[in-house]
Amino acid sequence: MKIALLGFGTVGKGTYELSLLRSEHGIEVTRVFVRRDHKRVLDLQTYDINDIISDPSIDTVVEVMGGDEPAFSYVKAALRAKKNVVTANKLMLSLHYEELISLARENGVHIAFSAAVGGGIPFLASLLRVGRVDTVDSLGGIMNGTTNYILTAMQQEGADFVETLKKAQQMGYAEADPTADIDGLDVRAKLALSVDVAFGKMADPAAVPALGIRHISAEDVAIFKQLGLICRLIGKAERTVKGAAAYVEPALFGQDVPEAGVNGTGNVISYRCRRLGMQNFFGLGAGMNPTASAVMHDLIDISLGFSAFDLAACKGSFVPDAAESVHGYYLRTDAPVPAGFVSRTLGETAEGTAYITTTLSVEAMHAFVNETLAKGGKAFAAALA
Amino acid sequence: MKIALLGFGTVGKGTYELSLLRSEHGIEVTRVFVRRDHKRVLDLQTYDINDIISDPSIDTVVEVMGGDEPAFSYVKAALRAKKNVVTANKLMLSLHYEELISLARENGVHIAFSAAVGGGIPFLASLLRVGRVDTVDSLGGIMNGTTNYILTAMQQEGADFVETLKKAQQMGYAEADPTADIDGLDVRAKLALSVDVAFGKMADPAAVPALGIRHISAEDVAIFKQLGLICRLIGKAERTVKGAAAYVEPALFGQDVPEAGVNGTGNVISYRCRRLGMQNFFGLGAGMNPTASAVMHDLIDISLGFSAFDLAACKGSFVPDAAESVHGYYLRTDAPVPAGFVSRTLGETAEGTAYITTTLSVEAMHAFVNETLAKGGKAFAAALA
Repeated sequence: MKIALLGFGTVGKGTYELSLLRSEHGIEVTRVFVRRDHKRVLDLQTYDINDIISDPSIDTVVEVMGGDEPAFSYVKAALRAKKNVVTANKLMLSLHYEELISLARENGVHIAFSAAVGGGIPFLASLLRVGRVDTVDSLGGIMNGTTNYILTAMQQEGADFVETLKKAQQMGYAEADPTADIDGLDVRAKLALSVDVAFGKMADPAAVPALGIRHISAEDVAIFKQLGLICRLIGKAERTVKGAAAYVEPALFGQDVPEAGVNGTGNVISYRCRRLGMQNFFGLGAGMNPTASAVMHDLIDISLGFSAFDLAACKGSFVPDAAESVHGYYLRTDAPVPAGFVSRTLGETAEGTAYITTTLSVEAMHAFVNETLAKGGKAFAAALA
Repeated sequence: MKIALLGFGTVGKGTYELSLLRSEHGIEVTRVFVRRDHKRVLDLQTYDINDIISDPSIDTVVEVMGGDEPAFSYVKAALRAKKNVVTANKLMLSLHYEELISLARENGVHIAFSAAVGGGIPFLASLLRVGRVDTVDSLGGIMNGTTNYILTAMQQEGADFVETLKKAQQMGYAEADPTADIDGLDVRAKLALSVDVAFGKMADPAAVPALGIRHISAEDVAIFKQLGLICRLIGKAERTVKGAAAYVEPALFGQDVPEAGVNGTGNVISYRCRRLGMQNFFGLGAGMNPTASAVMHDLIDISLGFSAFDLAACKGSFVPDAAESVHGYYLRTDAPVPAGFVSRTLGETAEGTAYITTTLSVEAMHAFVNETLAKGGKAFAAALA
């Protein structure tokens, strides 16, 4: 099997190395596409995507550039040229799932993307397999290692958010521009993609409300500790009568659940099925080795002619709706709180009053927090899970 | 695909129902073997195994009788008759792994056994898949739902072992003869089979030392609570310089690890690989629905011509050795304790003195407990994990 890599960052390099280390699988990298500003590293490299698309000897393209464009155009061109595609690109997949699955099916090629959610955790493949004999009713969990590292460190060291983020960046656990991670956009893409896979219908990621952890304070964390609770950023989706609810938000857990035991850059992702009950997967959700391993597994499966991702189907799209998902929240804000929101006032902090709310819809709470922040006020909310 | 069921107990019935419910997979049960004392339930049933072995229309045999013989003879006959085999029988597999894998390969048929470890948890299949690009260094976890139910109930209710076991039996969580579960023999078979799968060499299950939970007292559990620890029965195997260490024993965990969060009949099983790091799987480890689901997945994979179990290989056998595995223990006994065993005396209980030991080998501690019990003394030990 002759493959081309699109991108030669951490995951691309890891995949290249692994293909050499485990050469018994006959997976040979014969071309590497890099952007024009990339230094010359390999003889295999090219700046021209057409060198890959028009080369009939290349049967599979591994897209590990990330981002929507130009990755999406390149992947479409590869599929149309009847090349299999392996990708780790959750953003691209979540935005164009229906079109990508259709294109692969129409052209009789495989598309696989184990690495897009949970790094080396076999989550998406298992989710596709269970659908053969079971019905998935809900899914979600801790899907982002960067924010879990920050929340764990704040909990353990009592430090504030900005300081902890800086440390995470120094240690390579957070990117120079951390927006996608800390504002929950990375989780939103992974969650929407998981919903696509589980429900066989494409969820509009833009319709998934997402609150991140940018506004959490050291005092918030100290209050959680007093209450015996641990804060995690989660994505959650549930089947509803009308379709599905999906949302991303910080949530508070007691000590006796799997989520509370996942520290540092770990992920825990789960689904609940009617027959199988709850199934949780724990592991490293990112990093060169787990992600490159996942890419290699997809390549080996495709080279053997059978991938769990061949089970992926997509019939139409839908708008997920979190209006009927309700729970209580921890809310800390310096803004006046709407009538009926407050169940209990916990006390004053330097950045506003802390409350436990009544049972509210996800929609109502996200709207309040977003409006308060837009007006220059302070607000942080975390669900009582 | 026409299949025959050997056995029509909980899992057999569940598989039969699921094959009807999900008929789109084309898996049709055409014959059911039951023992002579079995009431007539189905027109498909037979008391004569040869009706199945000699029927060329049956391409796959599902063995869900359990136990070593006659299951082993029937499965061998099926493989020799070039029928695929799906089995949930961890005892048979752990005793005859090498022979069964060889027979399947020689006859060009599939053998698959997802349901043998972890019920519906995709543990063994994932373990086989990771081996393609990674090296497994250790594995294990909570592999038995019955004992986990008992330990959870003792912890939560402060009840003693005998009373809790009775309740578990009434609720259907423990069998009338609970020996295999409470003495750790079920875990031993699952652990040995997992080692076979991970290391590609057959581990002699008889050489795996196993301490169970039969002798745990309510006072032991009260002491664990005071220490902030939770007791779980675990199986553990580690790659060593000479081969592998493997053992089954109760172990004590702090609150912040996945094992402590698994209550009731749940299982958590994990492996650690060099590239992928630690991977944990949580879920229901037994029960009709999870187990029948696992059998169905194996059947669907075989009908599609590709099963992760096709990756299973076995080159020879070895004797696992726990002599070099060392850790401290909680030990409670009314027998005199050897010199050098005691690090700290915790206090007196109605059934002996409770200690924290120095770092001891698994071999030394198991020997002390077994000898004490054989002499009519009292002893219970749990590792400090």
